[in-house]
Amino acid sequence: MSEIKKAVLAYSGGLDTSVILKWLQDTYQCEVVTFTADLGQGEELEPARAKAKAAGVKEIFIDDVREEFVRDFVFPMFRANTVYEGEYLLGTSIARPLIAKRLIEIAALTKADAISHGATGKGNDQVRFELGAYALNPNIQIIAPWREWDLLSREKLMAYAEKHGIPVDMKHKQGGSPYSMDANLLHISYEGRHLEDPAAEAEESMWRWTVSPEKAPDTAEYLDLEYVNGDIVSINGNAMKAHEVLAFLNTIGGKHGIGRLDLVENRYVGMKSRGCYETPGGTIMLKAHRAIESITLDREVAHLKDDLMPRYASMIYNGYWWSPERIALQTLIDHTQSSVNGWVRVKLYKGNVIVVGRDSKTDSLFDSTIATFEDDKGAYDQKDAGGFIKLNALRMRIAANLKNRK
Amino acid sequence: MSEIKKAVLAYSGGLDTSVILKWLQDTYQCEVVTFTADLGQGEELEPARAKAKAAGVKEIFIDDVREEFVRDFVFPMFRANTVYEGEYLLGTSIARPLIAKRLIEIAALTKADAISHGATGKGNDQVRFELGAYALNPNIQIIAPWREWDLLSREKLMAYAEKHGIPVDMKHKQGGSPYSMDANLLHISYEGRHLEDPAAEAEESMWRWTVSPEKAPDTAEYLDLEYVNGDIVSINGNAMKAHEVLAFLNTIGGKHGIGRLDLVENRYVGMKSRGCYETPGGTIMLKAHRAIESITLDREVAHLKDDLMPRYASMIYNGYWWSPERIALQTLIDHTQSSVNGWVRVKLYKGNVIVVGRDSKTDSLFDSTIATFEDDKGAYDQKDAGGFIKLNALRMRIAANLKNRK
Amino acid sequence: MSEIKKAVLAYSGGLDTSVILKWLQDTYQCEVVTFTADLGQGEELEPARAKAKAAGVKEIFIDDVREEFVRDFVFPMFRANTVYEGEYLLGTSIARPLIAKRLIEIAALTKADAISHGATGKGNDQVRFELGAYALNPNIQIIAPWREWDLLSREKLMAYAEKHGIPVDMKHKQGGSPYSMDANLLHISYEGRHLEDPAAEAEESMWRWTVSPEKAPDTAEYLDLEYVNGDIVSINGNAMKAHEVLAFLNTIGGKHGIGRLDLVENRYVGMKSRGCYETPGGTIMLKAHRAIESITLDREVAHLKDDLMPRYASMIYNGYWWSPERIALQTLIDHTQSSVNGWVRVKLYKGNVIVVGRDSKTDSLFDSTIATFEDDKGAYDQKDAGGFIKLNALRMRIAANLKNRK
Amino acid sequence: MSEIKKAVLAYSGGLDTSVILKWLQDTYQCEVVTFTADLGQGEELEPARAKAKAAGVKEIFIDDVREEFVRDFVFPMFRANTVYEGEYLLGTSIARPLIAKRLIEIAALTKADAISHGATGKGNDQVRFELGAYALNPNIQIIAPWREWDLLSREKLMAYAEKHGIPVDMKHKQGGSPYSMDANLLHISYEGRHLEDPAAEAEESMWRWTVSPEKAPDTAEYLDLEYVNGDIVSINGNAMKAHEVLAFLNTIGGKHGIGRLDLVENRYVGMKSRGCYETPGGTIMLKAHRAIESITLDREVAHLKDDLMPRYASMIYNGYWWSPERIALQTLIDHTQSSVNGWVRVKLYKGNVIVVGRDSKTDSLFDSTIATFEDDKGAYDQKDAGGFIKLNALRMRIAANLKNRK
Repeated sequence: MSEIKKAVLAYSGGLDTSVILKWLQDTYQCEVVTFTADLGQGEELEPARAKAKAAGVKEIFIDDVREEFVRDFVFPMFRANTVYEGEYLLGTSIARPLIAKRLIEIAALTKADAISHGATGKGNDQVRFELGAYALNPNIQIIAPWREWDLLSREKLMAYAEKHGIPVDMKHKQGGSPYSMDANLLHISYEGRHLEDPAAEAEESMWRWTVSPEKAPDTAEYLDLEYVNGDIVSINGNAMKAHEVLAFLNTIGGKHGIGRLDLVENRYVGMKSRGCYETPGGTIMLKAHRAIESITLDREVAHLKDDLMPRYASMIYNGYWWSPERIALQTLIDHTQSSVNGWVRVKLYKGNVIVVGRDSKTDSLFDSTIATFEDDKGAYDQKDAGGFIKLNALRMRIAANLKNRK
Repeated sequence: MSEIKKAVLAYSGGLDTSVILKWLQDTYQCEVVTFTADLGQGEELEPARAKAKAAGVKEIFIDDVREEFVRDFVFPMFRANTVYEGEYLLGTSIARPLIAKRLIEIAALTKADAISHGATGKGNDQVRFELGAYALNPNIQIIAPWREWDLLSREKLMAYAEKHGIPVDMKHKQGGSPYSMDANLLHISYEGRHLEDPAAEAEESMWRWTVSPEKAPDTAEYLDLEYVNGDIVSINGNAMKAHEVLAFLNTIGGKHGIGRLDLVENRYVGMKSRGCYETPGGTIMLKAHRAIESITLDREVAHLKDDLMPRYASMIYNGYWWSPERIALQTLIDHTQSSVNGWVRVKLYKGNVIVVGRDSKTDSLFDSTIATFEDDKGAYDQKDAGGFIKLNALRMRIAANLKNRK
Repeated sequence: MSEIKKAVLAYSGGLDTSVILKWLQDTYQCEVVTFTADLGQGEELEPARAKAKAAGVKEIFIDDVREEFVRDFVFPMFRANTVYEGEYLLGTSIARPLIAKRLIEIAALTKADAISHGATGKGNDQVRFELGAYALNPNIQIIAPWREWDLLSREKLMAYAEKHGIPVDMKHKQGGSPYSMDANLLHISYEGRHLEDPAAEAEESMWRWTVSPEKAPDTAEYLDLEYVNGDIVSINGNAMKAHEVLAFLNTIGGKHGIGRLDLVENRYVGMKSRGCYETPGGTIMLKAHRAIESITLDREVAHLKDDLMPRYASMIYNGYWWSPERIALQTLIDHTQSSVNGWVRVKLYKGNVIVVGRDSKTDSLFDSTIATFEDDKGAYDQKDAGGFIKLNALRMRIAANLKNRK
Repeated sequence: MSEIKKAVLAYSGGLDTSVILKWLQDTYQCEVVTFTADLGQGEELEPARAKAKAAGVKEIFIDDVREEFVRDFVFPMFRANTVYEGEYLLGTSIARPLIAKRLIEIAALTKADAISHGATGKGNDQVRFELGAYALNPNIQIIAPWREWDLLSREKLMAYAEKHGIPVDMKHKQGGSPYSMDANLLHISYEGRHLEDPAAEAEESMWRWTVSPEKAPDTAEYLDLEYVNGDIVSINGNAMKAHEVLAFLNTIGGKHGIGRLDLVENRYVGMKSRGCYETPGGTIMLKAHRAIESITLDREVAHLKDDLMPRYASMIYNGYWWSPERIALQTLIDHTQSSVNGWVRVKLYKGNVIVVGRDSKTDSLFDSTIATFEDDKGAYDQKDAGGFIKLNALRMRIAANLKNRK
């Protein structure tokens, strides 16, 4: 590895990345550029600027990427009804490729030769950052301090911070949140500490974005979601941009106790890990997207998508957003969405997202003249079913005849 | 088709199959054997015996197949986390192969040369009955009256009944339930009438097995489910047989408003159809089974199962339970369940099934010494991740280098 | 089915379709339009015109569709390395959707309300014609004489012909070719008669397009095939159109005894059937296309294509070329071919197609500086492999530790 | 990594592993146990014993594992018609898990705490050895000298050998074979040197097991292969054990110029690599196994196997033989083979393996009474096909109607 002169750091302004900033300056004797993204995590970003400045950073990037995040990452993913291991909506996974892309873009802008991030060596995020970065710039150098340094416990980290005059705010001094958290417009996640025993129930106090179903309103609320090409474009008749859609759904979903999830997942690096997630808007979107597809998508196209979905989900979970195979699958997925137009009505109530109606003026393949239990006036000839069954049964009848002869 | 001397009819004792019974006797001049199954649909079966006798039937079979149904059909299906089109738990589909098998068995016992059923020519059930029957007896003759006769509206059916002295009970005279329904221990389903407009919300009065989440108790209830080889064997410490498990979960799930579903599905015969389902016990089982697998199943085995699941679900939905491909897949699925032992705790509350804990004394692959955010004392070497990422990125870096050279 | 006034018949001018022409006129009292396609089957088409005229046909379509056939059907299929059941190159299957499309186009042009074809009720071709036709015009009426009439043996057919003054040429009088054959630029196929015993070797005299390997030249021949976007655009430096490529490869492949195949396949209608095929050009194309992809396609993209290929092959075999699912898959396949540029050298010798070299100036992902067994001067750090293996092994080590503890 | 006291080395007696033996003794100051396997590679093994003794090895294992290799590894793999990337028969890949297993068994027997092998850090074999070893003994230590030492060129290796008095035989002194080779009963492989240019044709002198098709006999030879449960049990009526079958087919295949392959493959470690292979027996087995399955396997079971095959092949190629997912798939594959009984006749001629007949007395699903082009006397009702097509077309007709209305 050649000498590093300048590194772009994915910087939140929190304790960990503040320590990393200092550690990079000391260890590599390099200039550090900070990049702080507004992904809708709901935190003030200006303090990050002040802290970076105080640490001697000359090039500070603070970008509002919320619209890009939802429009170009979250929405494409939801077009596939993407769920990892039957449950997880990939809230953390889908933000990483955007950050990787911006790190590489900023490295090009600032002529930096390296990037750095605060993900640990045990998790998926290091993989997602680095696979993305390498795919976009194969010669970038990557510094992953958690895999290099010896500050492997919280105590050592705090000691390092204090020794180097890095401000440690109150919550860290008191032990802070017991959880390792990540947030963006799609979700907030919790890992670690109390959750490391998968047999134990998560504490109610942990959850931040949603009320418990018990505390949610006693009255249900209905939403009309309008779809164009598989994406929500308006809610209750109000046109919205992608990130506005998700922000709106998060607020209303959170209010109704929607989108909590507690699961044990399989990390790409080979271990099982327990995580809790709040994904209020995403939970509504998944349910509603399936509903609009149910009337606008051909059966075999829908089944093809279902068959490919777990693979697509793994690609995103494992960090292969910028891979040619993910892009190839996306081409197929996006192609299928041209007919996914119409509206879905959902009812939200105490943790439940209930689809109560769906229709499409332009693309509904639901044909009540055929499906009816009443007289269909010849639209469908029931006798056809006899031949259909006979030929589908033929191979099994031949086999059964053979068995009988034995 | 040769002459038919004796036919076994899947007979509920209701209006439709009573008309079919008479119609078979008249049209084919054949003897009719009736078969009525107790699948846990919650109806008295003895009236069916009396009606059959009154119609001149000499061989009447009324079987309690509840245990067989859940043990040999429902449970094996749930081992695969089976869901059709992302939502439907296959409650109707999974009962048909059992009925087909009993029809063929009874045909052998009674030396009948045909079987008959009351499924219409537009639906999936005719396919499921007949594919199953042909697979088990390739030379059986099958009479599907709905595809043969001209009684294609309810009015004509009622007129036929009255003309032939078939008792039409009050509910049919008044139009009866507006829905076409099917019930067994796994679910109850509703189709037709008001539901034929997929844009319209189902009426609250339709639902029979579950209260609405709004009317469910204000206090949550917890259940401890114990698994052996992927099947639930006890609840809250009480050992139960398969059908007792499902009956118990139905009762408690129904009480808590769990398991309602309103969807548009794609039938095997080529049309879209709107159905509403109540599957309280099944909804709990699906969620809990994923949870026990999450700690006891290897990642790649779990992903293999997830990749194959939609195909397995389609096999069942389309009526291929008795096909060699379903049996081949089942072999794989059952093989994977030998390590699926342990317990899951779920919380039931107003329509929500929330997994709050899971563990396995014998088969947990969750290793907190590795996954911990704290110092792991060398159980996992974070530096390994560097090489892991580098090699996984290699092909993308080579491609990116090529692109840069262009 | 409403009255039929005019039907477009897929007409070869041979005995079968001549009988059908007459039978249609008599049975339906309708006008018949004939459509004869030059798919490169190597037969004179003008006699068909004369015969149609003689039979009173007023609208006669004889189209040279060779270029369209190879460019828009065969080449797209070969981009996927498509093989049905591990062996069959789908020579018959891929021509049917083109014929279906032309039948529907001609029906629109001539204001015909029906189409008709000469495929039997036991085969795949009826399905391919009709699924294609229905997909392109859902209200078209289709007449499949073999499913309607009673001329179910060759004797009855000949009797009908003689009775109605339809010329029966010498070969039919003498029993003709013992095989049911189909030919187009991609292949010629043989079924029936002697082949109905799958244990018996096909007669050498049956094969028409290829010499036996034994009779092929004793000297090998080399070809340089140039690819652009996954399609061959020149051979030995000579630019060619799609159908010229295939015609050239057929000639040279046939000369070298390449492309014979004898197999038992599974028909969509449920039976097994023995067929023999000659596909000289296609056999060369399959081998060469894999070779050019081997250096220009990313590993995971190639594997995704491989995983989807059998499904894509079944779609074509079963007649779903014009289905939305085939088109969706094609979108993915075509997308992947943008980098499939370069050349492949093959050696042809007595039935063998041997790839001896391949390269791409613009898109080769083969990087000899990395793959070399010699000193790579740091292009690849062998130590990375340690971490790669360790993390890939982690889940199995955790499982093995658990097993040891038991 | 704790101190190593004793290591089991996969030892061929060649230059590389002789250097490794010495290097292990010097570097780790540990005792070395050698393991040399007779996999049918066709080399004398006793010299390895003498060399090991001379190097001071006290525990020397030389095992004839040929029968186990073919019976428990090669045959199970061929039951799946396994091919990697459309071409490669996995000859090297399938031997590694057996060696890994024996290394771990010998480590247990000799109370060794480590194993070692001579695979480089760039290839797949290190992964296969080590994943297997870790899966079987999660606490084994693994020494991969090529990833640790600095002898990264042939010159340095030779210098080390000479310095330490390791005998370097004539071929190495003269540069030896220009290729990196691997051989066992399934194949012999060539990589490196001249082959590192994928555009260049391999030299005829390279091939060792097969004559060129040009030099093969001018007369074809026929073989009758008998199958029981998917495995060949006799050839031309002579019962043989698994390894005898393969040895026989290698000899006769090699004589007829069968089984050469020249390809660029995608390694698991991320690079493309050019390899040449001779797999005479395996090439015959693949072709013949497909043929016996073509008449004994149900269509959907065969298609399920085809769909899963590339995944199964990747598992083996990537080193996951001992993984739970490979074992789960094997369960399915083996289950399907119970009906794969019968015989196949193949004709071998100058590089060609031509299936000319196949039959099964007990399990043939080929029913000529149905498939016949002649009058089938009612075995199949052609009218059934009309309904079959109509219902399969229904969803496309509904879609086309919608499109027309737009």
